Amino acid sequence: MDGGGDGAQGLEEQAAAAAEAARELRDAAAALAVRRAADEDALRRRAVAIDADVRRLQGSLAPLDPATLDKVEEELERARAAILDGDVAAFLPSKGNGKFLKKFVGPVNVRVARKEDKLKVKDEYNNYRDRAAYMFLLFPSTLLLLRWWVWDGCLPALAVQVYQAWLLFLYTSFALRENVLLVNGSDIRPWWIYHHYLAMLMALVSLTWEIKGQPDCSSKQRGVQLFLRWAIMQGIAMHLQNRYQRQRLRTRIALGKAKRMDVVAGETAGVEGQLLLLYPVLFVLQGFEAYVGVLLLQTAWHGLTSEWQVIVCGILLVVMAVGNFVNTVETLALKLRFKAKMKRTRHRQEPGQGGANRLHQN
Amino acid sequence: MDGGGDGAQGLEEQAAAAAEAARELRDAAAALAVRRAADEDALRRRAVAIDADVRRLQGSLAPLDPATLDKVEEELERARAAILDGDVAAFLPSKGNGKFLKKFVGPVNVRVARKEDKLKVKDEYNNYRDRAAYMFLLFPSTLLLLRWWVWDGCLPALAVQVYQAWLLFLYTSFALRENVLLVNGSDIRPWWIYHHYLAMLMALVSLTWEIKGQPDCSSKQRGVQLFLRWAIMQGIAMHLQNRYQRQRLRTRIALGKAKRMDVVAGETAGVEGQLLLLYPVLFVLQGFEAYVGVLLLQTAWHGLTSEWQVIVCGILLVVMAVGNFVNTVETLALKLRFKAKMKRTRHRQEPGQGGANRLHQN
Repeated sequence: MDGGGDGAQGLEEQAAAAAEAARELRDAAAALAVRRAADEDALRRRAVAIDADVRRLQGSLAPLDPATLDKVEEELERARAAILDGDVAAFLPSKGNGKFLKKFVGPVNVRVARKEDKLKVKDEYNNYRDRAAYMFLLFPSTLLLLRWWVWDGCLPALAVQVYQAWLLFLYTSFALRENVLLVNGSDIRPWWIYHHYLAMLMALVSLTWEIKGQPDCSSKQRGVQLFLRWAIMQGIAMHLQNRYQRQRLRTRIALGKAKRMDVVAGETAGVEGQLLLLYPVLFVLQGFEAYVGVLLLQTAWHGLTSEWQVIVCGILLVVMAVGNFVNTVETLALKLRFKAKMKRTRHRQEPGQGGANRLHQN
Repeated sequence: MDGGGDGAQGLEEQAAAAAEAARELRDAAAALAVRRAADEDALRRRAVAIDADVRRLQGSLAPLDPATLDKVEEELERARAAILDGDVAAFLPSKGNGKFLKKFVGPVNVRVARKEDKLKVKDEYNNYRDRAAYMFLLFPSTLLLLRWWVWDGCLPALAVQVYQAWLLFLYTSFALRENVLLVNGSDIRPWWIYHHYLAMLMALVSLTWEIKGQPDCSSKQRGVQLFLRWAIMQGIAMHLQNRYQRQRLRTRIALGKAKRMDVVAGETAGVEGQLLLLYPVLFVLQGFEAYVGVLLLQTAWHGLTSEWQVIVCGILLVVMAVGNFVNTVETLALKLRFKAKMKRTRHRQEPGQGGANRLHQN
């Protein structure tokens, strides 16, 4: 490219040189792509072989005495972690996107190749949850305050519908983002994703629900008001959960353990005090959710409303409350079991595959 | 791993060997990741330098005589194509996801690395459009037929709402998928994506729109009926477009030109007959869309309905019709200009950057 004049001749030569350089670059990139594919294949084969070995060994540890068993189990767990946590993970065969993600975004690869980028995606998800938690507090509080101060006890339909549309968007984005985390190896409990599908359905149904106005708003809008109050409690619980999870992630990163895409794993170091607050709040919230659901069903039962939306929303709320309760109890049980095991073996170790869980509700 | 006995001693040794192999693999993968990053950086620097050279040259071709100009322009266009179409593209700095995609899916990389995979994503998008076009025909036709045969002239609210919810999902998925295509270098006209945002908004608004029942359905549901009829026409137009685009993509792949992610480019070879049918259908469709919008606005104007949803949907329909019309005319003008240029230069050449366009409406 150097030294060509600015005349016609020079321009032609420069263009030819640029085209030649572009062709060379194209060939170099194609060669690199082939080499990369071969490198990846070799690594993948080694990783699959080691993984199979580890699984086989994990299934045949019965004859060992307890002391050796713990040691060997730890060794094998470390071997799995070396494969699943490090750069190797990017070369392992992918799980695929799952139906939900595929429907919305198509068959595109949402897998993150680099370790650091994975933590970034996880971190961004946490930030998103944080912002959502503020909105979860602010939006329904504002509606209830305005109802009291400005709207004379009667929520305008449009304000409630904007809130419902926001909920629909929020739950859709949560479900999509959690599906992305899942593809990237997160251990998120499937229930929390199903929970968001149900919440999407409820937001959609509630959008078609006619918001009745005057006269006699306070009795007609009783369901909406209960729902808004429950949403405020939800916002408080989300804040507690986010604080708890963020603090724990920070502890784990400091301990150099937060490599896997676990949204939460079974460690409770340093945050036990917060847990004592979090669990009661969660159980109260679930109770209130079921209560709102039952109230809606009662309204339909006594013939006060004939709209199918009331029945569907009531059933959905009860199902979600029960599912949340079961999954929170299971998570709690796993935490306690893990704690007992830690006491028994008297030294800290990475929680097993079964120990990675999730406290997460919205 | 070989030869270890099945006793406790053998198991311990095998576990240690597996852990050692896993550690080696982890280090190999880390080394490979570093080497890959360095390779990519080098390629990226070369690509950016050549791209800058080509752009500089393209801007300084004024002094050339027409014959040389065409030749040099073609040479430079080929240089750009070698960079943008081949494996090099995967190493170029990415455009970023755009706000819409980021809101729903987060900051994850949806860029497709391999050339073949890009064409797969494009192909899957076309298949998705095909299936959507069938639903676009079937769903509203079924509703209108059932209204006539079974429902005694009166559409039940739930059936219409399910249709509207489906539209909301469909437009959201279109918008997300097209944003993914955009990240992957598609030349899709921005309007068609904005159009889907507006259509999402309309589906959302129409969900909150109370569907009135008996008595006097046929006059109360006039807007819904018009909308359904327009949707049927839309389905027919989508079929025509899909057939046209698929045939053209096939022609271009056969000619070895369909490397870039253009959803449609400026070539009309072999499909001119279809275009003569497609454009009139598109213009009629846009006229009908605007007509439905104006009818809705008139209903509100004459005080027949007081619902804000009628006004918003009317405005949205008119805006979409006008936008679609302007963009279709622009696409047509570019096609004609390109055809004239081809005649002038008397030999086929790859269409320039400005010539890649899109016929796409739903």
